Amino acid sequence: MIGIAILGYGVVGAGVGQLLTEQAGRLSRAAGEEIRLKYVADIRDVQLPAGVKLVRELDEVLGDESVRVVVETIGGKGIAYQYTRRALEAGRHVVSSNKELVATHGDELLPLARQHGARYLYEAAVGGGIPVLFPIYELLCASPITRVMGIVNGTTNYILTRMKEANASFPAALGEARELGYLESDPSADLDGWDARRKLAILAHACFGANLADDAKIPFEGISQIAWEDVRLAEQMGAQVKLIAHGQRTPSGWTGWVGPALLPNAHPLCVARDVFNAVCVTGEAVGDVMFYGRGAGSLPTASAVVGDIVQAVKRSEPVGELVAERAAFDAAPCVGSFCARVGDGFVRLDGATRAEAAAHFGQDAGAILRVLE
Amino acid sequence: MIGIAILGYGVVGAGVGQLLTEQAGRLSRAAGEEIRLKYVADIRDVQLPAGVKLVRELDEVLGDESVRVVVETIGGKGIAYQYTRRALEAGRHVVSSNKELVATHGDELLPLARQHGARYLYEAAVGGGIPVLFPIYELLCASPITRVMGIVNGTTNYILTRMKEANASFPAALGEARELGYLESDPSADLDGWDARRKLAILAHACFGANLADDAKIPFEGISQIAWEDVRLAEQMGAQVKLIAHGQRTPSGWTGWVGPALLPNAHPLCVARDVFNAVCVTGEAVGDVMFYGRGAGSLPTASAVVGDIVQAVKRSEPVGELVAERAAFDAAPCVGSFCARVGDGFVRLDGATRAEAAAHFGQDAGAILRVLE
Repeated sequence: MIGIAILGYGVVGAGVGQLLTEQAGRLSRAAGEEIRLKYVADIRDVQLPAGVKLVRELDEVLGDESVRVVVETIGGKGIAYQYTRRALEAGRHVVSSNKELVATHGDELLPLARQHGARYLYEAAVGGGIPVLFPIYELLCASPITRVMGIVNGTTNYILTRMKEANASFPAALGEARELGYLESDPSADLDGWDARRKLAILAHACFGANLADDAKIPFEGISQIAWEDVRLAEQMGAQVKLIAHGQRTPSGWTGWVGPALLPNAHPLCVARDVFNAVCVTGEAVGDVMFYGRGAGSLPTASAVVGDIVQAVKRSEPVGELVAERAAFDAAPCVGSFCARVGDGFVRLDGATRAEAAAHFGQDAGAILRVLE
Repeated sequence: MIGIAILGYGVVGAGVGQLLTEQAGRLSRAAGEEIRLKYVADIRDVQLPAGVKLVRELDEVLGDESVRVVVETIGGKGIAYQYTRRALEAGRHVVSSNKELVATHGDELLPLARQHGARYLYEAAVGGGIPVLFPIYELLCASPITRVMGIVNGTTNYILTRMKEANASFPAALGEARELGYLESDPSADLDGWDARRKLAILAHACFGANLADDAKIPFEGISQIAWEDVRLAEQMGAQVKLIAHGQRTPSGWTGWVGPALLPNAHPLCVARDVFNAVCVTGEAVGDVMFYGRGAGSLPTASAVVGDIVQAVKRSEPVGELVAERAAFDAAPCVGSFCARVGDGFVRLDGATRAEAAAHFGQDAGAILRVLE
């Protein structure tokens, strides 16, 4: 029997609890051994499935030798970081949906895991339920990745979709997102691009061998500058405004950015409407491959967490290890095409950096959109 | 050192040879041990990378103990079947892109592999370079699949795309496909739906625990009945004609069909244009997940084959094993919506079986299209 403990029984943690309980037979078959949820650690008095013990501290979990996987769904980088370190040091596999922690401390946690014969897995940190990291780390290993592009933040994609399809203003679409529970209490991580930036850093680790902490180096913008008129103008041009996370290999390493972009309607990523996410990678041999699905939500995210649990316990060798050579962040600004609204139309500037575009369009311009083909 | 042998050095086999040679360092890193292409078996005098030995018979390959993976890219079910059996019986992993063989004899080859401690892997048999089978077998194991829908034949999708986007007639689009080398010498496997049916059987094995040989039970149609007018009418209705492979879980097992269908433009699968493939699965927990990319071609398909080689050699435990309980084919005809062209418009019939639709529309009707939402 393989014992599981869930640290933090919020939306995702409770989803993991539900799947481990409802799919117990199937998961045990997949893992080749009985998988049983034994502990939940939470400071609140949460409602638990029968037979699961609520604890307040990690010690009680680590004292039980049968617990081989610890699920970290606490979030943030305070107690989540401490608990992850201690669990790995105790030789327990840690499965996480916490992109903030992975981006901030992953470069330290991955070797720590290896050193203790444990795995640190985080498929759920990018694209919610969509299998995307494992396929890149492992299944596309014959095809070095040259570019990754993604719509990886569901909240902003919902807002932009409502602006496009329901003719809503930014404040109105934001209000709808709040009513539907898509907004965090502090919506800045989503709206200002922090969340997408973390996910890009994690994707770039898988794709190019980036450091996870390159997160802090990626230039980023959110969507709060996007006006109703930008969305309408894009529509007239057969394009859509999307918040894009973009990374590419360079001769000296990798580079990337997060920001609003004009994407032609025919681009495969446009398939991602509402809260859906999509990640498109370009591989040398395989060409364009896209992964699409629900980027958030309790059960979709829990599906990815539980998939990682099964991989961690059934495989005796490391899983999701880096195949790419390490690559440093290339801070030279990317040159591309940009547009901004001037009067009733978009003005376009090709072959410029973001700073040059800002200088060109001047202080009166609203949002500056990258133009993608 | 892990020796590799490729049986059949055609389009896909040569792509595998190229990737094994060009990506040798990277692949050896991924596998944790040197991977080296040692033999190619072919009856022709093919051009090989330096250091690779051309042989005519499997015996010489199996006589070399260092050969741990045999790649079967012969095609068909004659010599490919014999060689696969012998390689598995000799305890060698077999990686295949041969959907005909997998669909016909997979139910026998998978247990044979297990019995000899070997793997029989065939990611490349569905969706070319797209990682789709492994994610379903392993990564979505927490999310039982209720439905699978795919555009899995690139040639027919190319033809339908040209009819839609270039206003081409069926014969004209067929001619273009032939010129671009997308047509086999006998195009019937693609045009009449045999190829899509085999892929649906393989997908259904991963999704529902179907027998691979259920292939022979799946009702199927191709696209040769589709006229220019059908494509135009679909367009007027905001829909597209696509050749769809469709499977779903039923209370008593699973069922499926392959045939031309009307797909609304807003459906995610419409992202697959030209020769691209897309497979959309619906999981209980995860919701809709879609995989998209190049469904054919030398290097994309080889990318999936080489991914399987690495999985086979680096993992000590079985890989891509069935998690779903076995499910029998439910031969009761699926009830759905159909339409056919009568005069200048489509007539639609809801809540009917395919046979009822055919009887309803009568012998004068052209193509009968399933209507999907």
